[in-house]
Amino acid sequence: MEAHPPRGFGSDNHSGAHPSIIDAITEANTGHTTAYGGDPWTQRATQEFRRLFDHPVDVHMVMNGTGANVLAAATVCRSFEAIIATDTSHMHSDECGAPEKFTGSKILLCQNESGKLTPASILKHLQGPTDQHWVKPRMISITQSTECGTVYTPDEIKAISQLAREHKLVLHMDGARISNAIASLDIGLKEMIVDCGVDIVSFGGTKNGMLYGEAVVFVNTSLGETFPYTRKQGMQLVSKMRFVSSQFLGFFKDNLWLDNARHANSMASLLAEQACSIPGIELQYPAESNEVFARVPRPILSLAEKWRF
Amino acid sequence: MEAHPPRGFGSDNHSGAHPSIIDAITEANTGHTTAYGGDPWTQRATQEFRRLFDHPVDVHMVMNGTGANVLAAATVCRSFEAIIATDTSHMHSDECGAPEKFTGSKILLCQNESGKLTPASILKHLQGPTDQHWVKPRMISITQSTECGTVYTPDEIKAISQLAREHKLVLHMDGARISNAIASLDIGLKEMIVDCGVDIVSFGGTKNGMLYGEAVVFVNTSLGETFPYTRKQGMQLVSKMRFVSSQFLGFFKDNLWLDNARHANSMASLLAEQACSIPGIELQYPAESNEVFARVPRPILSLAEKWRF
Amino acid sequence: MEAHPPRGFGSDNHSGAHPSIIDAITEANTGHTTAYGGDPWTQRATQEFRRLFDHPVDVHMVMNGTGANVLAAATVCRSFEAIIATDTSHMHSDECGAPEKFTGSKILLCQNESGKLTPASILKHLQGPTDQHWVKPRMISITQSTECGTVYTPDEIKAISQLAREHKLVLHMDGARISNAIASLDIGLKEMIVDCGVDIVSFGGTKNGMLYGEAVVFVNTSLGETFPYTRKQGMQLVSKMRFVSSQFLGFFKDNLWLDNARHANSMASLLAEQACSIPGIELQYPAESNEVFARVPRPILSLAEKWRF
Amino acid sequence: MEAHPPRGFGSDNHSGAHPSIIDAITEANTGHTTAYGGDPWTQRATQEFRRLFDHPVDVHMVMNGTGANVLAAATVCRSFEAIIATDTSHMHSDECGAPEKFTGSKILLCQNESGKLTPASILKHLQGPTDQHWVKPRMISITQSTECGTVYTPDEIKAISQLAREHKLVLHMDGARISNAIASLDIGLKEMIVDCGVDIVSFGGTKNGMLYGEAVVFVNTSLGETFPYTRKQGMQLVSKMRFVSSQFLGFFKDNLWLDNARHANSMASLLAEQACSIPGIELQYPAESNEVFARVPRPILSLAEKWRF
Repeated sequence: MEAHPPRGFGSDNHSGAHPSIIDAITEANTGHTTAYGGDPWTQRATQEFRRLFDHPVDVHMVMNGTGANVLAAATVCRSFEAIIATDTSHMHSDECGAPEKFTGSKILLCQNESGKLTPASILKHLQGPTDQHWVKPRMISITQSTECGTVYTPDEIKAISQLAREHKLVLHMDGARISNAIASLDIGLKEMIVDCGVDIVSFGGTKNGMLYGEAVVFVNTSLGETFPYTRKQGMQLVSKMRFVSSQFLGFFKDNLWLDNARHANSMASLLAEQACSIPGIELQYPAESNEVFARVPRPILSLAEKWRF
Repeated sequence: MEAHPPRGFGSDNHSGAHPSIIDAITEANTGHTTAYGGDPWTQRATQEFRRLFDHPVDVHMVMNGTGANVLAAATVCRSFEAIIATDTSHMHSDECGAPEKFTGSKILLCQNESGKLTPASILKHLQGPTDQHWVKPRMISITQSTECGTVYTPDEIKAISQLAREHKLVLHMDGARISNAIASLDIGLKEMIVDCGVDIVSFGGTKNGMLYGEAVVFVNTSLGETFPYTRKQGMQLVSKMRFVSSQFLGFFKDNLWLDNARHANSMASLLAEQACSIPGIELQYPAESNEVFARVPRPILSLAEKWRF
Repeated sequence: MEAHPPRGFGSDNHSGAHPSIIDAITEANTGHTTAYGGDPWTQRATQEFRRLFDHPVDVHMVMNGTGANVLAAATVCRSFEAIIATDTSHMHSDECGAPEKFTGSKILLCQNESGKLTPASILKHLQGPTDQHWVKPRMISITQSTECGTVYTPDEIKAISQLAREHKLVLHMDGARISNAIASLDIGLKEMIVDCGVDIVSFGGTKNGMLYGEAVVFVNTSLGETFPYTRKQGMQLVSKMRFVSSQFLGFFKDNLWLDNARHANSMASLLAEQACSIPGIELQYPAESNEVFARVPRPILSLAEKWRF
Repeated sequence: MEAHPPRGFGSDNHSGAHPSIIDAITEANTGHTTAYGGDPWTQRATQEFRRLFDHPVDVHMVMNGTGANVLAAATVCRSFEAIIATDTSHMHSDECGAPEKFTGSKILLCQNESGKLTPASILKHLQGPTDQHWVKPRMISITQSTECGTVYTPDEIKAISQLAREHKLVLHMDGARISNAIASLDIGLKEMIVDCGVDIVSFGGTKNGMLYGEAVVFVNTSLGETFPYTRKQGMQLVSKMRFVSSQFLGFFKDNLWLDNARHANSMASLLAEQACSIPGIELQYPAESNEVFARVPRPILSLAEKWRF
């Protein structure tokens, strides 16, 4: 008897969509409305973001996370300007070179510390030559929660944003798993983002119950004025945009996003706890959000293969 | 009394999604499955495409039509190679320079004849210099049905594909409105595409009832081997791909795609017919698919503004 | 007896270098000096440009004309911004797509009138849609003297620069044959460029007696602040820059550049005059600088083949 | 009394050109010849390269070393393919991101060992994921002599080329200081390049007595068929190419290139030897070619400032 359908631990995206998200799409599927963002759902979603950030942010819907990250970079970096990120960052490790291809910019790598950038590791890239032979650092990108399942504290983010301001750099947050970070820290978006000096956020929905779609949120709105052109040229303009925007409306409604994230985080904690009780299994990083990385002895690993797909 | 909700004539994408499409998504929303294309829905959708094309095509889901066109070009053109297209083509006129940006290739323009390329207009670009100072033509892109609402006959396509073969060029079809062309010609995909010598198709779904998503279909499969890398680097990899693939399953089921297209075409015919009965209104092109372009006297035009959005 | 060595009419670059240019290089070949532009010859060449322009221009040496044009465009255009130029322009017709490749920008073509852009032809490109689906015009590029051998009058340039200012566009001059235009108009660089509202000039030397090397001259210096980075990333930084700068010193010394240009212009006039005296030969454009384009009956053409190489 | 004019140790390019190189240019400056490579000097220079390589290499003149490296990469890498190089490589450290900008490719960095790549360090990049989320390694680039002044032995190169062949990678050599390596190893180009399995060489001239100009040499000629288009689109086509080719003729004549390189190498040895005799100065790498890197106590360093420029 198969009481539980199989679960795949290879990717957040193995899971489907939350039913309420599909309901939100269904509700928006009524009659004609202006395409490409001129619809009331997009207007309302923008208002929701502003309410949650408690800040007059600019919000642009895009198709996916790679698109969000790359277009954020393309908006602020000229091709001779560089992005500073960890070696574990999605921008470096999981986008098949999309940032370099579209922006022309180099990614300057810092060795991660449990998935995080630190001011000291960033600083090394700010003390190099400044002449025409070498790229100019322009954007720091942190991932919250990180690709290692850890979560930056607000103080850690503030320390980075202070460094960014001192060197006239832009601070970008890859928030593919931003909900999990918020749930983990149990604070608001204002506290974690606006108050910490983050300029741009790739705000993820897909890994937390949406079908597709992310938002690029400009806290520093002066940076994003030409974003619509970059988005279109970057093949990320959503034609029937109401269906991304309405997903975000469903996402934020009744705190669905937080409920989903809390559930995912607690399941990760449970997994981490149970896994660690097995002799020979050792966590690589603290499981602070919805990801668990462990060193697993080979015999146990082979048992787990069927859950991997 | 508002018996009919407002209709917007500015874009196909003002309309929503067909309810059966949302049903298809809902049915696919069951448990975990492998992300990024390794799911059974994508497998089945590929089989459906093969059945409809009656040919062992390769099928790659992407997010949108601009993505489909640009990545098709990027797959076959090196940056010093050029694309031949009409001045009315979506690739030139409605993609904010995305093809040039991502491929580095020049688009060689031909003046359209009712939205169409002709062998004579293409030939002009094949008789230029062939040395290193000038780009090398590599891909011809036709749009079926065209951006003017006309439809290429199979013989017109064959004449172009013959020219393409003679000059070792690839023939691409932008099929954002391919359903409407099939409905208009009342033939099969095999007859319109495979038998006419088309190599690659951007197969549209969104303008004909889908929420989002298109497919890049390689009839000439030898051209598409590296497409997955280009798709990922081009920010068009769909993470929860089952939800695009299941839409195509719903799209093809019970000929929904043809029913939708036939309805749209007949409404366009009706509009064209009625509009022409108004003195002073003159059609610009025959309304062979779902688009109507007319010269309208300014006083009448201002009446129409409320339907434009 | 071969009194005159053969002359090739296929390109300005078939000719060699003026002996005084090689002398100038030899004189600069003395000891060590700072590479990459920090040498006294580059400083003096900059002063010479400022004296001749009678304006505090910024001057950047580059390797060749394609580099000068492309990097000028890359400095002012973001990839979603477009360049307006004639169909005969070198940027479109003779650079193998280098502008599109490096800048990502589209070139919006105007049909040339005897090689020239006109305000009316430019205006067509300024009245299109301004939304995210279409590129934003940013730079107008004129060629002086043109690729057809004609020369813009100052009034013609002023009319274009006025249009540029009204639409916040940058006016670039491809001056691969700028010496010939100056010689033809018999005015100064200040009158032809600064007073006419040109912002950036690709200042050519190679087609008028130099070995290699051109200069990108920013009249509007606020546009060029990041040029050194763009030049290096664009593979156009000259390592032993003193040898380009010293060529320009030799070029300007004792009006060599004007003497060369006047000679070339008068030889072109002579050729045009003599050619037209042959029945059946008809000039395509007035020979206002150093180029002659004529319709030549096939039998005469075959006689000319040996001079073509 | 200033017996010796100042010498600058900041760059090889602080020095001028060898007088014989200028003589070679002067000799080539005779009458008209076909531009863009169709001249007899280019033909003869190609023959010289073939004689020295003892192999039917293809040779393409370019303007400078960054151009040679970037265009070699652009010829063999598609944008989703990657370049493997050391963190000290010119391609990574001194080209302001030109490779990423022009090719779109990522550079996968290996920590250098005295400026060198090793099979072990390369292998790490060949054992990563091979799916669409990650770039595909395509080209290994070594620098000979290295940016640290060391020289690969033939066996070291062979070990890398064997790895390259096993993984279907192309082996590129950045030979900005190739003459110094040949002089150091005291073997021929055939032994160091052809016999060691190198596919493409950026063959440097400027750092060893030329005014400007390098050559991209394809040992594996099947890789370079489209190079002329890439060169033109990459802004590196030399118009008056005879003046680069004639420099190479002068360079190879009477072994000038080897004499220059041997002199530079012996001066570097002398400097290294003398420097090391000063207490507190410590060499960082063995001075095997024409570069010396040393740790110098601050008080001594300030004495050296005047020689640095």
